[in-house]
Amino acid sequence: MRMYDIIEKKRDKKELIKSEIEFFVNGYCKDEITDYEMSALLMAIYLNGMTKSELTNLTLAMANSSEILDLSDIETNGTFIVDKHSTGGIGDKATLIVLPIVASLGVKVFKMSGKGLGFTGGTADKLGSIVGYDINIPLERAINQVNEIGACLISQSKDLAIADKKIYALRSLTATVESPELIASSIMSKKIASGTKKLLLDVTVGSGAFMKTKEEAKNISNIMIAIGKETGIETKALITDMSEPLGKNVGNAMEIKEVISFLLSDETSIFSEDIADLREVVFNLSAWMIKMAGLGDDIEQNKAKVLEAITSKRAYNKFIELVKAQGGHIYNVYMDWIGMSLDMPVLKDEVKYLKEITAQQDGYIVSIDSKKIGEALVVLGGGRKEKDDVIDHAVGFEFVNEVGDRVQKGDTILKCLYNDKNKFEEAFEYIEQAIYIDNIDKKLADTLKNKPHVLDIIY
Amino acid sequence: MRMYDIIEKKRDKKELIKSEIEFFVNGYCKDEITDYEMSALLMAIYLNGMTKSELTNLTLAMANSSEILDLSDIETNGTFIVDKHSTGGIGDKATLIVLPIVASLGVKVFKMSGKGLGFTGGTADKLGSIVGYDINIPLERAINQVNEIGACLISQSKDLAIADKKIYALRSLTATVESPELIASSIMSKKIASGTKKLLLDVTVGSGAFMKTKEEAKNISNIMIAIGKETGIETKALITDMSEPLGKNVGNAMEIKEVISFLLSDETSIFSEDIADLREVVFNLSAWMIKMAGLGDDIEQNKAKVLEAITSKRAYNKFIELVKAQGGHIYNVYMDWIGMSLDMPVLKDEVKYLKEITAQQDGYIVSIDSKKIGEALVVLGGGRKEKDDVIDHAVGFEFVNEVGDRVQKGDTILKCLYNDKNKFEEAFEYIEQAIYIDNIDKKLADTLKNKPHVLDIIY
Repeated sequence: MRMYDIIEKKRDKKELIKSEIEFFVNGYCKDEITDYEMSALLMAIYLNGMTKSELTNLTLAMANSSEILDLSDIETNGTFIVDKHSTGGIGDKATLIVLPIVASLGVKVFKMSGKGLGFTGGTADKLGSIVGYDINIPLERAINQVNEIGACLISQSKDLAIADKKIYALRSLTATVESPELIASSIMSKKIASGTKKLLLDVTVGSGAFMKTKEEAKNISNIMIAIGKETGIETKALITDMSEPLGKNVGNAMEIKEVISFLLSDETSIFSEDIADLREVVFNLSAWMIKMAGLGDDIEQNKAKVLEAITSKRAYNKFIELVKAQGGHIYNVYMDWIGMSLDMPVLKDEVKYLKEITAQQDGYIVSIDSKKIGEALVVLGGGRKEKDDVIDHAVGFEFVNEVGDRVQKGDTILKCLYNDKNKFEEAFEYIEQAIYIDNIDKKLADTLKNKPHVLDIIY
Repeated sequence: MRMYDIIEKKRDKKELIKSEIEFFVNGYCKDEITDYEMSALLMAIYLNGMTKSELTNLTLAMANSSEILDLSDIETNGTFIVDKHSTGGIGDKATLIVLPIVASLGVKVFKMSGKGLGFTGGTADKLGSIVGYDINIPLERAINQVNEIGACLISQSKDLAIADKKIYALRSLTATVESPELIASSIMSKKIASGTKKLLLDVTVGSGAFMKTKEEAKNISNIMIAIGKETGIETKALITDMSEPLGKNVGNAMEIKEVISFLLSDETSIFSEDIADLREVVFNLSAWMIKMAGLGDDIEQNKAKVLEAITSKRAYNKFIELVKAQGGHIYNVYMDWIGMSLDMPVLKDEVKYLKEITAQQDGYIVSIDSKKIGEALVVLGGGRKEKDDVIDHAVGFEFVNEVGDRVQKGDTILKCLYNDKNKFEEAFEYIEQAIYIDNIDKKLADTLKNKPHVLDIIY
């Protein structure tokens, strides 16, 4: 078998067979196939697509390129372990809220998460803002933890799906990242390798996501569901909006604060208009995870359970349990506003400067470009330009106004918290570009304000 | 400027501008752009094509990547220097016949030629079968030679269009050779670099050529003519058939013998049915070169001049003059069959073995696959597998029967001359696969026998 013939075949839109796909995946891992051969093939795949059978074989070959985790020691008592994966976004702290909610309701969650790169943040970095939290605990300890408290949140082991890692690195240098087929098989190969059998996808759409349109998101969801079907992973996908940042806070420690605040909501504050987007996403993801775990078929009933888990503080307590189990530092504080004493994680949240960014004109906020906000965070050091960059967990943004809100010139739209004076100007440019204010009709403004955040569910 | 953005742009079918094309051509030459980046771009070009403006800019950037020859010291006396280029074939010795013909009629020809690689032979290798012939004479001497005898035939200098050379090497490893746009700009960049202003292309079609159909050949001809228009090279193209080998002989020294024999034809033998294909190609190429040189507008009148140049032996004498001028060894021999004494080149034509390949059944020869014949020659050592292989000039094939001929089982179809006993079996397999005999209608056989070899002229 020759790599040349495989490239030629894909170039000519002919279907590659299993042995050919295994040949280039394994050969590339062993450095028997060169970067330039692989990059020609990747561009041919990008432009000519892949058949269902090719996708399955590519996904399996990448998953099998190294260790596959065995989660059979997790005691499920007749339920199912459910994994959740988001395709990335700005201000997306949903995993950190959903995990304790569903774990408090009996769902077993073994969750691995990656570091962020570029304008989208990673859940691992958000947890990194809790002093002492160890994302790298050994596999055995993580499994025991799931048996004891129902959940773990650890970093993706370096040894899983090494072929995917190597191929992804080349894709990021050769403009072959944004291929739905390659994105889908990359995600699914990591899921197979991490032992997932039931997977709920949060496929994000909008400027702050890989997928720019709902159609693209549906397409990639269908590809992942089809791969899942062929490789034994029951997969469902929620399509969610990521055109503006999710929730009020963007930045690692600041997002943990929003997680805490959300999980401490009472019967009234949980329905506040301010957190409508985050609530909609969290309730839907949680309800579907409960269903997939076999703990309740009715989504509306499941949402009621979610509400009860929050207002009873059982979800919050599960969150603290999770933080403690992985070494996160906790302090006890009396919270005036809820009139009780509470355990709280110790955060790396010290910042030197705070600046309020104000409206440049009267009007309604028509849009807040989440990608630009993500880029502004990277500029301030809250995200990575290169994969080995050290990040500043404390910096970030808190939105005071959101899309659809009426503002007057000079009103504060968001607060910017930062540590490096020299970087503010550049970040400010991104923020300015991100916010678009115009004199639109009140009706249109209301439509924008109340637009749905969960756009579709595909299964 | 970043290579990533250029790849992305081409991937998304957007037109690259001049500075972008110069950036990647020059950057690749200077090793500032990696092989894997270049190969992703080449695959994107292969699959998405190039616009006219991109083609012009790519061709010029490659031509300008190193020295451009200055042929202004060639004295043209009001005529034009004409270059000829064939896209390659099996048994294609047309250049070696056309050159002395047109030079004897006053056309100035400064011809550079490459070594063969794979199943198509190179003119440089054919001349290499003449003892002493120096294909690597210095430029200044070659220009003087054109001024003195009207022609030179030298190897393509290593320093011309080095970007094309480097890019071609990568294309040959990444299945991006067969792109009409990349083939066209590669040829034209070398022509610009070698100082060509008037170019007659012989675009070959069939199994033994890059282009498999007449449509493909017309397409690439039009691309080259368009590039020529934009870059100041007047370009015309003859489309010629290469489905079966051209002429009777395949193999370096054996093709030189056929050249000699052709140039020694008299008024009768030149019209022999045996050399119809070669005659048609030679007469047309020569007549068009004469026209392009400004030495006669009427193609039919030019063909009459060609006939006269051959039968008067002026073309043959020019051939001997050319061989002598570049150091080729000559001996004088009395030729019984034409009743005169003649200068002849000394050839590296010694072979140990001769085997006659015979018909396996009665019938008409329906086809002789020239690519398979070319591959058989490579097996015997008469062509190169790798670019640094040393070739055996003496080996080859002489066809006794051709397409359209009626044969009986056991009749000789071709003679195989070779030196390495161990390689004959493998070569024989290719030859057997090349020849297809069937009981077709006599009328169809005649049509096959008399089919045209010059299929079109495009300008």
